[in-house]
Amino acid sequence: MSKISDIAKRAKAASRKMALLTDDARKNALKKAAFALRQSDQAIIAANKKDVASARKKKYAPALIDRLTLNEKRVDDMARALEEIAEQKDPVGEVVEQWTTKDGILIKKVRVPLGVVGMIYESRPNVTAESAALCFKAANAVILRGGSEAIQSNTILAKIFSEAVAESGAPKDAVLLITDTDRKNIYELARQDGLVDLIIARGSEEMVRDIKKQGTVPVLGHGKGVCHVYVDRSAHPRMAEDIAFNSKVQRPGVCNAMETLIVHKAIAEELLPVLGQRYKNAGVELRADDGARKYIPSAKRASEKDWPMEYLDLILSVKVVDSVDQAIDHINKYGSGHTDVIVSQDASSVERFVQGVDSAAVFHNVSTRMHDGGVFGLGAEIGISTNKLHARGTMGARDLTTTKYVAEGSGQIRK
Amino acid sequence: MSKISDIAKRAKAASRKMALLTDDARKNALKKAAFALRQSDQAIIAANKKDVASARKKKYAPALIDRLTLNEKRVDDMARALEEIAEQKDPVGEVVEQWTTKDGILIKKVRVPLGVVGMIYESRPNVTAESAALCFKAANAVILRGGSEAIQSNTILAKIFSEAVAESGAPKDAVLLITDTDRKNIYELARQDGLVDLIIARGSEEMVRDIKKQGTVPVLGHGKGVCHVYVDRSAHPRMAEDIAFNSKVQRPGVCNAMETLIVHKAIAEELLPVLGQRYKNAGVELRADDGARKYIPSAKRASEKDWPMEYLDLILSVKVVDSVDQAIDHINKYGSGHTDVIVSQDASSVERFVQGVDSAAVFHNVSTRMHDGGVFGLGAEIGISTNKLHARGTMGARDLTTTKYVAEGSGQIRK
Repeated sequence: MSKISDIAKRAKAASRKMALLTDDARKNALKKAAFALRQSDQAIIAANKKDVASARKKKYAPALIDRLTLNEKRVDDMARALEEIAEQKDPVGEVVEQWTTKDGILIKKVRVPLGVVGMIYESRPNVTAESAALCFKAANAVILRGGSEAIQSNTILAKIFSEAVAESGAPKDAVLLITDTDRKNIYELARQDGLVDLIIARGSEEMVRDIKKQGTVPVLGHGKGVCHVYVDRSAHPRMAEDIAFNSKVQRPGVCNAMETLIVHKAIAEELLPVLGQRYKNAGVELRADDGARKYIPSAKRASEKDWPMEYLDLILSVKVVDSVDQAIDHINKYGSGHTDVIVSQDASSVERFVQGVDSAAVFHNVSTRMHDGGVFGLGAEIGISTNKLHARGTMGARDLTTTKYVAEGSGQIRK
Repeated sequence: MSKISDIAKRAKAASRKMALLTDDARKNALKKAAFALRQSDQAIIAANKKDVASARKKKYAPALIDRLTLNEKRVDDMARALEEIAEQKDPVGEVVEQWTTKDGILIKKVRVPLGVVGMIYESRPNVTAESAALCFKAANAVILRGGSEAIQSNTILAKIFSEAVAESGAPKDAVLLITDTDRKNIYELARQDGLVDLIIARGSEEMVRDIKKQGTVPVLGHGKGVCHVYVDRSAHPRMAEDIAFNSKVQRPGVCNAMETLIVHKAIAEELLPVLGQRYKNAGVELRADDGARKYIPSAKRASEKDWPMEYLDLILSVKVVDSVDQAIDHINKYGSGHTDVIVSQDASSVERFVQGVDSAAVFHNVSTRMHDGGVFGLGAEIGISTNKLHARGTMGARDLTTTKYVAEGSGQIRK
């Protein structure tokens, strides 16, 4: 295992070659990688079995083991994500803006690759293939550093991917995996400024904070999700019920699951008894304010500590409000700026909510769970950013680029 | 003087009101501010005289005193910059991308204000008015923290600006100035995450590094400029001479001045003796490699230390190369990714250079000095970023925004 700085140097050299690859070449390479994944599915599953066995031995939680496990369907899903990414519009070379100055200089703001992306993540091995593909689509080199629990799976996935793209003329160091899972390597990677242009960190809030603190390379962290659904007085009650249920229950352990339900008082009596029962049947623990407990008397009393909580579990806080403005204030005060939803049939409430809520994604009549690169049609996502700089919300290939001013003149000088 | 966190809270509250102002309201407010500056020019100049007198007493360098000094023309220039910024296309509300997913969800990526910008800068008082205007145009609140040497000028400028925009219905805390110039307030400002969304730091590299280290708010730093002009073998010699001379001499103390001249060997004999003489007459000290000293024997010998140097002075390093590729490699190795120029009449060399040089701005047949928000038509600039994330190159109002996903559905939930 070579040193992290050596890996970063190899990636940097590869990134210069990546920048010269045409969109067609990148597209074909990604399709070859998808094909290779399908062809090697048995070998991938065999390697994955070792990770799963070792996780079982270490008594990992069933949810984690589920995230770790690959089968034929999951390998096929990965391959399909690669094909979708391949077919996307090339972000590189896009002219974002173009104008001519008073002096007659033609200025273009052109989208170009970032260079080298360092990708730090945990558990799910599909992230290996999908992150590599998104970075590759945007003509970057990538250094992957997955969790130790998935090391066998990640190693074979990275190998198949990088061999397949190399056959299509891509540099062989376009995708590199750090196989030494010592945690200090993460910090070392985050200190390679000049070689690594961006670190994307998917993991706990604490991990992201540590990387930012220890490193010098800019970090985009996968954000905490305290997501809300607000049911307006004008909401279609059945739609509200389905969105509120789906947002909490469909997969409670992820960042785009709802943590707090906010209901307008005028619809609370109609909605809450039915919905409360449905949550109860699904095993959801409810923590409600007094306004909501009127209609769900069995709910626990919510405390001030509940409102900013990211439960990541079958627990939900519930609040009744007098107005859309009160809902907006609550969300801006306690939310994490991730994904917040209004269910409403009233255009002026929707406009107020969309404008007033300061979050990466504001949805109207859609489940919070739909904030996802796959659902959005990005093929996959490299993360969901709750930062306001560079990229906000689900991040795809386009978010892995920067821009460059290209100016064309005829001898203009400064007077 | 209240505490920094109180100022940040006031700015945050103001930013919510700013987000609701229409483009017309912001436009009118900026024009009123321009009018007010012109009307108060004598009061501004009187306040400025106190700063200048105190700087003279402290024996500041003449260049610094020049940057600090305001006169009627400079106040008028400031007012004109405000009017130009007012007339720009509103960045807020722009739909960057829009599409419908397979599930029928309409997704829009909409440009929205960042919120609160913290602006840290030195010396030149025009930055006060221009930064305030750019932040205001993008519907942000701004907290200004200028250098102590300009405190009288900054105080009156901020007061005139904020009173004028408040008369047009803008919140009175949209523009706040930190008048206590203790350095610890800079770090305190950079720790207001949750209240301040972005710090822009214009100052020395060291200062920017310090702020990043001490703070928790994201920082965009005004970058170091090791800018190059490469004169290709195909260059028009007279144009090359003018661009190379202007890039170095017109204002050597700024980040977009050229520091290294690179000349193709095939044009060195024609260009360098003439240009060398012109530099000599202008008092430029030349430090050349052996290839260049053949044609400018009086030049000092350049050492390895010269190539990465930002002289910010009438000093220039000169190098002769065999090819455009050698020029590209030199620039990527020693440059700072700020502004690099090719002078050439050959399309394939230009294409190679534009694609190969990894800098914020790559110019063809234009002086490095033209990389400037004013020249570009942005009215003014809040800084030039050599970062790759969020904004790269000269930054105007559009770079003071973020985006938000707004999705419109009809009850879509995750299966």
